[in-house]
Amino acid sequence: MTPRSSHLWSGAAALVLASSAAVAAPPAMLGFSAAGADAERALEARFDANLSADAIRERLRRMSSEPNQVGSPHDRANAEFTLAQYKAWGWDAHIEVFSVLYPTPRTELLELTGPSPYAATLTEPPIPGDETSSRQAGGLPAYLAYGGEGDVTAPLIYVNYGMPADYAALQRLGLDVKGKIVIVRYGAGWRGLKPKLAYEHGAVGCIIYSDPADDGYGAGDAYPKGASRPEWGVQRGSVMDMPVEAGDPLTPGYGAVEGAPRIDRAQANTILHIPALPISYGDARHFLAALSGPVAPRGWRGALPITYHVGGSGATAHLVVQSDWNQKPLYDVIAVMRGAREPDQWVIRGNHRDGWVFGAQDPLAGQTALMEEARSLGALAKAGWRPARTIVYASWDGEEPGLLGSTEWAETHAKELQSKAVVYINSDTNDRGILRVEASYSLQRLVDEAGAAVRDPETGASVRDRAMAELQVAALAPDATPELKSHAKLAAAGGDLPVGDMGSGSDYTPFVQHLGIASVNIAYGGEGQSGGVYHSAYDTFEHFERFGDPGFAYGVVMAETGGRLVLRAADADLLPLQFSDAAVTVAAQVAELKRLVVTQREHATTVDRLLDQKAFALAADPTLTSGPPDREEAPPDIDFAPLDAAIIRLKASARAYDLAAAAAPASANAQRVDVILQGIEQALTEPRGLPGRPWYRHLIYAPGMLTGYGAKTLPGVREAIEGRRWGEAGDYIERTAAVLMAMSAKLDEATRLLAG
Amino acid sequence: MTPRSSHLWSGAAALVLASSAAVAAPPAMLGFSAAGADAERALEARFDANLSADAIRERLRRMSSEPNQVGSPHDRANAEFTLAQYKAWGWDAHIEVFSVLYPTPRTELLELTGPSPYAATLTEPPIPGDETSSRQAGGLPAYLAYGGEGDVTAPLIYVNYGMPADYAALQRLGLDVKGKIVIVRYGAGWRGLKPKLAYEHGAVGCIIYSDPADDGYGAGDAYPKGASRPEWGVQRGSVMDMPVEAGDPLTPGYGAVEGAPRIDRAQANTILHIPALPISYGDARHFLAALSGPVAPRGWRGALPITYHVGGSGATAHLVVQSDWNQKPLYDVIAVMRGAREPDQWVIRGNHRDGWVFGAQDPLAGQTALMEEARSLGALAKAGWRPARTIVYASWDGEEPGLLGSTEWAETHAKELQSKAVVYINSDTNDRGILRVEASYSLQRLVDEAGAAVRDPETGASVRDRAMAELQVAALAPDATPELKSHAKLAAAGGDLPVGDMGSGSDYTPFVQHLGIASVNIAYGGEGQSGGVYHSAYDTFEHFERFGDPGFAYGVVMAETGGRLVLRAADADLLPLQFSDAAVTVAAQVAELKRLVVTQREHATTVDRLLDQKAFALAADPTLTSGPPDREEAPPDIDFAPLDAAIIRLKASARAYDLAAAAAPASANAQRVDVILQGIEQALTEPRGLPGRPWYRHLIYAPGMLTGYGAKTLPGVREAIEGRRWGEAGDYIERTAAVLMAMSAKLDEATRLLAG
Repeated sequence: MTPRSSHLWSGAAALVLASSAAVAAPPAMLGFSAAGADAERALEARFDANLSADAIRERLRRMSSEPNQVGSPHDRANAEFTLAQYKAWGWDAHIEVFSVLYPTPRTELLELTGPSPYAATLTEPPIPGDETSSRQAGGLPAYLAYGGEGDVTAPLIYVNYGMPADYAALQRLGLDVKGKIVIVRYGAGWRGLKPKLAYEHGAVGCIIYSDPADDGYGAGDAYPKGASRPEWGVQRGSVMDMPVEAGDPLTPGYGAVEGAPRIDRAQANTILHIPALPISYGDARHFLAALSGPVAPRGWRGALPITYHVGGSGATAHLVVQSDWNQKPLYDVIAVMRGAREPDQWVIRGNHRDGWVFGAQDPLAGQTALMEEARSLGALAKAGWRPARTIVYASWDGEEPGLLGSTEWAETHAKELQSKAVVYINSDTNDRGILRVEASYSLQRLVDEAGAAVRDPETGASVRDRAMAELQVAALAPDATPELKSHAKLAAAGGDLPVGDMGSGSDYTPFVQHLGIASVNIAYGGEGQSGGVYHSAYDTFEHFERFGDPGFAYGVVMAETGGRLVLRAADADLLPLQFSDAAVTVAAQVAELKRLVVTQREHATTVDRLLDQKAFALAADPTLTSGPPDREEAPPDIDFAPLDAAIIRLKASARAYDLAAAAAPASANAQRVDVILQGIEQALTEPRGLPGRPWYRHLIYAPGMLTGYGAKTLPGVREAIEGRRWGEAGDYIERTAAVLMAMSAKLDEATRLLAG
Repeated sequence: MTPRSSHLWSGAAALVLASSAAVAAPPAMLGFSAAGADAERALEARFDANLSADAIRERLRRMSSEPNQVGSPHDRANAEFTLAQYKAWGWDAHIEVFSVLYPTPRTELLELTGPSPYAATLTEPPIPGDETSSRQAGGLPAYLAYGGEGDVTAPLIYVNYGMPADYAALQRLGLDVKGKIVIVRYGAGWRGLKPKLAYEHGAVGCIIYSDPADDGYGAGDAYPKGASRPEWGVQRGSVMDMPVEAGDPLTPGYGAVEGAPRIDRAQANTILHIPALPISYGDARHFLAALSGPVAPRGWRGALPITYHVGGSGATAHLVVQSDWNQKPLYDVIAVMRGAREPDQWVIRGNHRDGWVFGAQDPLAGQTALMEEARSLGALAKAGWRPARTIVYASWDGEEPGLLGSTEWAETHAKELQSKAVVYINSDTNDRGILRVEASYSLQRLVDEAGAAVRDPETGASVRDRAMAELQVAALAPDATPELKSHAKLAAAGGDLPVGDMGSGSDYTPFVQHLGIASVNIAYGGEGQSGGVYHSAYDTFEHFERFGDPGFAYGVVMAETGGRLVLRAADADLLPLQFSDAAVTVAAQVAELKRLVVTQREHATTVDRLLDQKAFALAADPTLTSGPPDREEAPPDIDFAPLDAAIIRLKASARAYDLAAAAAPASANAQRVDVILQGIEQALTEPRGLPGRPWYRHLIYAPGMLTGYGAKTLPGVREAIEGRRWGEAGDYIERTAAVLMAMSAKLDEATRLLAG
C-alpha cells in the first residue's frame, strides 16, 4: 500500500466510525485485539512470502493440458494430482465422490434447409500458435448441458437476447415463436433462461450464438491476433434451470451419494424441454442472413455485416440434439487443517476444478491460485503455526453443468455445515485487473480491510483503493446505473468498499442461499481478456498466459486476497463480521422497492391512458405489423410497514453490536458470541424459501428467476412486485421483516454478551 | 379527424383555457371571430379540394429528372418551370438572381498508401431498377462544399463522430490528431463541425464516412432491396461554418446582388481550412481496416465487420481536394398574392429547390407539395377569393451549400421584411409519417389548431393527434430524454402540440434568427425511408416513390398543413399568435440552466477530488495508453435574478394578452395590435447578436456552435455556461432578460389596445 492511499484509507475509516458514534480509535483489524492484529500482519507477511507465480503457472499448464469436463480422464487425473499435492503440503485431504446425472451429446445437427442449405460446423478448428487447441480429442463439442432432447424442423425466428422484454417487443411486432426454432444471442441474461423462456413462449428449439458486437471482433481483435472470440468460437454452457435449484437434478435437496434415492428424470425440476445448441458467429451468420420479415428493432442488431431481420417465416432450420443421460462420477477434493482453539468453527475456501474444455481461465486460473494458498498455509503449518478455527479447502468438480460438486457436498453435510461453517470464501475465474467482490453484507468490512492490505502489482496501491477508484470513475459516466452512483456516493463518504449482491453463477450458491452460510466471492478482472474465449476450446494456457494474466501476478494477488480472508476469519478473536453496512444496504433496498411500486403505478396509468386514446395505434406505422402493449395492472397500496419497522430495529441493533464488538474484540464471552454470529446468516433464511423454489431459502439475496446469475435483493418481495403478485408481495414483506427481526434479536443477544 | 380524437382535443383545449383562467368558451380558431372561423373552414375545404397527389407526383418526376445542384442547367430549368407555373396559376411571380461564391470540385483524390494501397472510388454506380441513378452526368461527385484546398499525406486516425466528447476521449487515450488526417463517421453533430473541430485540434485533412450501423445495412436493407444506403452511397453536403453565419461567404450580412461589394475569399468567416471529402462505407472499410493502435472505445464501434481501431500511426492516407472557386448564379422564384385588407403584412412560405444530385426527397418532395398549395391558392383567387394579408411563395435556390438563396433574399430585403413579414413558414424534405414541427413559440397554438384540422391518411386521426400520440409513446421508453418526457407531460396535461426549438439546417434561419421574424418549419416523416439515401445520387424519384411517400398522400397532407398555416395567418382578424406557451417554455429553460450550473459544479468537484486521489490513474489499465481528464473549472455563483424577474413578468403579460385576444379577436384595434405583434419576435433579438457571431441576433433560439443544426435555447447564456465563460454568462443573462422584458412591454401595449 502506498503511503498516500494508506493515509486516505485511515481517514475514511475514521470518518465512518465517527459517523457511527464518537468512540475510541477503531481496532486495527476487525475481530482482532491490537496485539492480535500485529501478529496477524506478521503471519500474513510470512504467508505472502511463500507464494510463487511460477508455481501457479506450471500448475495451470499441467491442469489445463487436456479437456477436463466432468467424467473426462483428465478431470479425474486433476483430482488425484490435487489430492496428492494437498497431502504433500501437510493437509488432511481426501476425495469425496458423488454420482450425478450428467448428459453428454450423442447426436447434434443444425442445418438451414431450403434454397440455400447450410449445415452448422459446430466445431472449433485449432488456432495457429495455440498448441493446446489442437488437443480437443475427448472434449465436448458445441453443447448445452441439460437442454431437452429433440429432432425438430421449424421456421427460424430471431428474438435478440431472448429476455422477457424481447418477447414483449416481438408481440408488438405481431409475431410469436409458437412452433418455431428461436435463434438468440448471448448476453443480457443468463444462458439457461433463453431456452426456458423460448419454451414457455411455445418455441420448439433454441439456438444461442455469440454476436460479434458483444463477443467477437466488435469487442476486440479476434484470436489469435487479439483475445476476442474468433469466427468459429462457441460458448458451451449449462442450461439447467438453476434459478429453481442447483445440483444434481435427480437428488434435489440431498446429497447424490451412492445409494441415495434418485427421482425419475422426467420428474426433475431443472431439465429443460426443448433441444438447444450454442453456435459460433461463423455459423450464425448463415442462419441470420436467411431470415426475412421485419427488420429487427434497433437494439436487436449486432455487428454481423447484414441487415438483421426477425424472420418467423421463410427460413427453416433443422435441429437435432440427442444425449446420453448417464450417471457420471464427481470428484471433490476436500482438505482440512484442524483449528487449535475452535475446531468446530470451519472457514471454508473453494474453487471449482472442472472446465468446459481446457478451462485455463475458467476455472483453473482461480483453482491454481487457491492451491497456492493451500501450499503456503501448509508451509506455515509445517513451521509450527496452527489456525484458531478449522480451515477447509475444496476443489469442486462439476460446477459448470450445475454447481454439482459444491451442491452435493453442501447437501450431504448440510447439518454439520449449518452448525460449524462460519464463512465460505469462493473464487472461480481470475484475470489481470481490479478486485470484484460479491458478499454477504456482514463480510463487507472484512473484505475492505483485507483488500486494503493487498498491494496491486500494477499500481502499487492497495487492491481496495484501486477498486474504489474504478468504482468512482465509472460512476462519472453519463450512463452510470443508479446502483453504481449510489455505491460511489457511499464510497466517497468514506464507506467500506461496496460489494456486489450475491446472485449465482458459482459455488457459493449452495452455501449462502441454500444453507445460510455467510459467503464471499472474489475475482480479479477487467483488464485481462480471457473472457474473450469464455467456455470455448480456446480457453487455453496459451491464451491465458498471453491475454489473461501475463506473468501470473494476479494469480499471486488472488492467493494473497483469498489467504487473508481465510487467515483473518480463522484467527480472529471474535468472528470478523460487521453489520452496519448490512443495515444501510437493506434500508436502501426497501426504499428502492417503494420507488419501484410508484414507478409501476405511474407506468400502468400512463399505458392505460394511452391505450384509451389509441395512442399506440396512432403512433405506429400501419404498413408494419404492430400492436399495442398489454394493459398493466397497477399496484394496490402495498404496506411496507413491517419492513420499515425491521429496518429501524436492524439499524439500531447493528450499530450497537458493531460498537460493542469494536470495543471488546477479545471479550471473555467471545466464544459464546461466535456461536451466535456463526448462525446469524441463517437467521436470514427461512425453511419455506422463495416462491416456487424452496431450495433458495435466503430472503435477502438470490439469483433472479428472470436474470439467472444477476442478483435480486429482497427477492421474495421484489419478484412478487415485478410479477404483480400483490398478495405474495405482502406475504414476503412480512416474512422478510421477520428474518431481519430475527437477525436483530441475535445481534442484541451478542451485544448483551459483549457488554456483560 | 375521428369523433373520438375530436372529442379529446376539445377536452384538452378546454383544459388549457381553464388552467389559464375561467373565461368564456374559447374562440374556435385563434385570431378569428366565430363567424370568421366558420368561413375559414369552408375556405380550407375548397383549398383541399384542389390538391392532387398525381400533380405532385408528376411535378416531382419532372423536377428530379436531372442533377439540379446550384449552377446546373436543370436547376435553372426548374426555376423557369416554377416561374411559368406560378404565372399560369395567376401569381405575380419573378425570378430574383444573386451571384454567390460556390466552389465545385476540380481534383479529388483519396488513397491509402503503404503495403496495401487502395484508392477510394468516390463514385456511386447506377443501381439496377433505378433509371434516374444512371443519369449522373453533370452531377457532383462525392464533395463537401466550402471545405479547404489541399494535397496532404499524413497518418490516418479515427475519431468516431468527431465531436468534442470524442476529442476528450482521444486525449485520455494519449493520442491527438495533430498533423494527421482524421476519418470520422456521420452522425451525433452537424457535418460541418467535423472538419472544423478536426482543424481546431490540429488535423490536416478530414474524411467523413457513413457507417452502416447508423446509415446503411445496419439501419435496414440496402437499396435496391430496401431503402437504406448502399455500399457505395455517399452523403454530400456543405461544411460552410453556418453556425457563425449563413449565406454567401463573400457578402456577409448583405445581399449578393450584382455590384455588391465582395470581401476577399481569404477574409471569409465561413470557409474551412483543411480539405475534406465524404466517402461511402464501401470505401471507408479499407481505410478503417488498415488502422492499428488502440481498439476504439466501445461507443466508437460501428457495424463494419472489423475491429475498429483508433490508428494514428501506421496507416497513411493521401487526400487531395482542389476546387474551382467561381461565382455562380442563384435563381430564387418569388410569387406574390397581394392582400386585400393589409397588403403590407406578408405571410411568407418557402422551400428550397436545389438538390445535391437529383434531390427527389431533399428538397423536391417538399417543393412540389408547396407548389401544389400555390396552385390551389391560385385557383381560389381565380374564383374570386383574396387573402386579407399578402402571401409570398418562394422557391429558394442554393439552400444546400449554405442557405444561400433565402439568406441573400432576406438580407437584400431586410428592412422591408422586418417591417412587413408577419410569419415565415418553411418546409424542406417530406416523407410518409408523422408531423414534425419546429417553431417560434408564439406559433405553437396556430400549429396545434392547424394540425388538428388535417386528417392523417393512414389513421384517419388528425395529424396533431398522431404527433401527440407518437410523442407520448416515445416518452414511455426507458431511454427517453428529459426534454421528451417534459413535452409528453405538457401534452398529457392538455397542452398544445409541443414544438421543437429552432436550430438550423433549412431556410428559416435567416428569417427567424437573423431578422427576428416568427417562423415555423414543418415536415412529415419517420415512416417513409427516403433518409436512407440522404444527399446521395440515389435520392431519386424511383426511390422516393417506392420508399418515401408511395401514393403521394403525404405530399397532399404537407400541402394541407402548409396551406392552413398560410391561410389562417393571412386571413385572421388578429394575427394568430399566442404567448402563454412561450412563457411556460422559456421558464422551463431557465430552470434547466440553473440545474446545468449545479451539475457542472458537482461534476467539477468530483473530478477534482478523484484527481487528487489519483483515482483515474488507479482505475486505468496501465498497459493501455491513457491519461486523466483535465480539471474543470467549477462555476461561481451565477445570478439568474434578471431572468427570473423577466419570466415572472412575461408569464403575467402573456396570460393577460392571450385572454384579451381570446375575448376580442375582432377588436376595433386589431390592426394596431397587428402592428405590435408583427414586430414582437424582433423584440427577442438584439443588434449585437450572439458572442462571436453577430449575424445570429435571436437570444432565445439559435443553432449551437457545437451542435450545428441542433438548437440551443437561451443560447447566449447557455453556451457561455457550457464554455465556462462566466462573465459572458452574466452579460447574456441581462441581455436575454432585457429582450424578454421588451417582449412583455409590447404584449402589455397590445393588451391595453384590445381592452381599450
